[in-house]
Amino acid sequence: MSIVITAFERSPDGGQVLARDTRVRWALEEVGRPYAVRLLSFTAMKQPAHLRLHPFGQIPTFEEGGLVLFETGAIVLHLAQNRPGLLPDEANARDRAIAWMFAALNTVEPPILDLAVAKIQEGDRPWAQERLPLVADRIRQRLTQLAERLDGEEWLDGGFSAGDLMMVSVLLRLRPSGLLAEYPSLAAYVARGEARPAYRRAFAAQWAVNAGPPKAG
Amino acid sequence: MSIVITAFERSPDGGQVLARDTRVRWALEEVGRPYAVRLLSFTAMKQPAHLRLHPFGQIPTFEEGGLVLFETGAIVLHLAQNRPGLLPDEANARDRAIAWMFAALNTVEPPILDLAVAKIQEGDRPWAQERLPLVADRIRQRLTQLAERLDGEEWLDGGFSAGDLMMVSVLLRLRPSGLLAEYPSLAAYVARGEARPAYRRAFAAQWAVNAGPPKAG
Repeated sequence: MSIVITAFERSPDGGQVLARDTRVRWALEEVGRPYAVRLLSFTAMKQPAHLRLHPFGQIPTFEEGGLVLFETGAIVLHLAQNRPGLLPDEANARDRAIAWMFAALNTVEPPILDLAVAKIQEGDRPWAQERLPLVADRIRQRLTQLAERLDGEEWLDGGFSAGDLMMVSVLLRLRPSGLLAEYPSLAAYVARGEARPAYRRAFAAQWAVNAGPPKAG
Repeated sequence: MSIVITAFERSPDGGQVLARDTRVRWALEEVGRPYAVRLLSFTAMKQPAHLRLHPFGQIPTFEEGGLVLFETGAIVLHLAQNRPGLLPDEANARDRAIAWMFAALNTVEPPILDLAVAKIQEGDRPWAQERLPLVADRIRQRLTQLAERLDGEEWLDGGFSAGDLMMVSVLLRLRPSGLLAEYPSLAAYVARGEARPAYRRAFAAQWAVNAGPPKAG
């Protein structure tokens, strides 16, 4: 069955490839599934046709035969559970890899989302400059704990998994802030993710939509 | 194999039963698994012995034989995938129920966590009163969308699932703020969750630790 995902017609980050469809594209590339993309304007995302697929009016969505999914975590997990490449074979190791997916999305990403809110939605408020260091410190607390757990290993728990895919994707959002560079072991971890051929293909495909063809090198 | 979870020795909410072990207790009750609880002080949660189980120094954790899991979402999903009661049988419906788990944790809960941060961690800051309405409006945006999708149905997608368990648990955090009451259909949805015998047993067990025996009625 053919797969169709949705993505921004024009990404709000202007081609920094931080939109969440990159996570799904990366997973699709890791498991070797071809896919088509339906691009949506911001107006279309709030229309009934799209809200039927995604109740919160966001991207990406995932359609495959009769299955319609929203939520990046659920889409990546669906792909990981049905094709080899993103989860270990052993049952306990699979569960631990899935735990890292949830950790990325529910423990590490919320303070990172708060930083985006602080800068974009509240950047012109009188408290913006005074509040940003508090938000950054909450992120640093999580990064410190994550770096301690990674402890020089290549990936979070054995081989590369959907947990790493999600954690690297979440951490990538931090690079423009400079916070990622404060943790060299995490910056190297993210760079290992970006070096994967599947990530590079996903990046190129997203870049092609938002900022013209990928640059050489 | 016997199951051991961890929980707060003394919950920061003083027995409002919002600590995340309630979500795991509820799932354990829904699938009919007995469990033991190891209570932890805030000091013990940050010690190496606990950090080996939970890299972010939080509760709950889950131990069963050789399996150690952290992240409430991962623990509930593990239980749901291995015992009947929390996921439908049909493959696509299972995936959609899992999507609602992720939606609860990654789309609905982040602005709700932000409200807790705004009140507890930043409540004494000069911007607190001016900023709270902005945070509340971001929550309202999600609640409006969720209420539109629920559209008078009993549960989010067919029968009660792990997706409802997680969404009800996330929404319960909002009750003290008064925001939940602004959406009568969501308040009724949460009340249906609380009325489930499994939830009532989980509530009573958590309450017994934090605030003495449960009240009659």
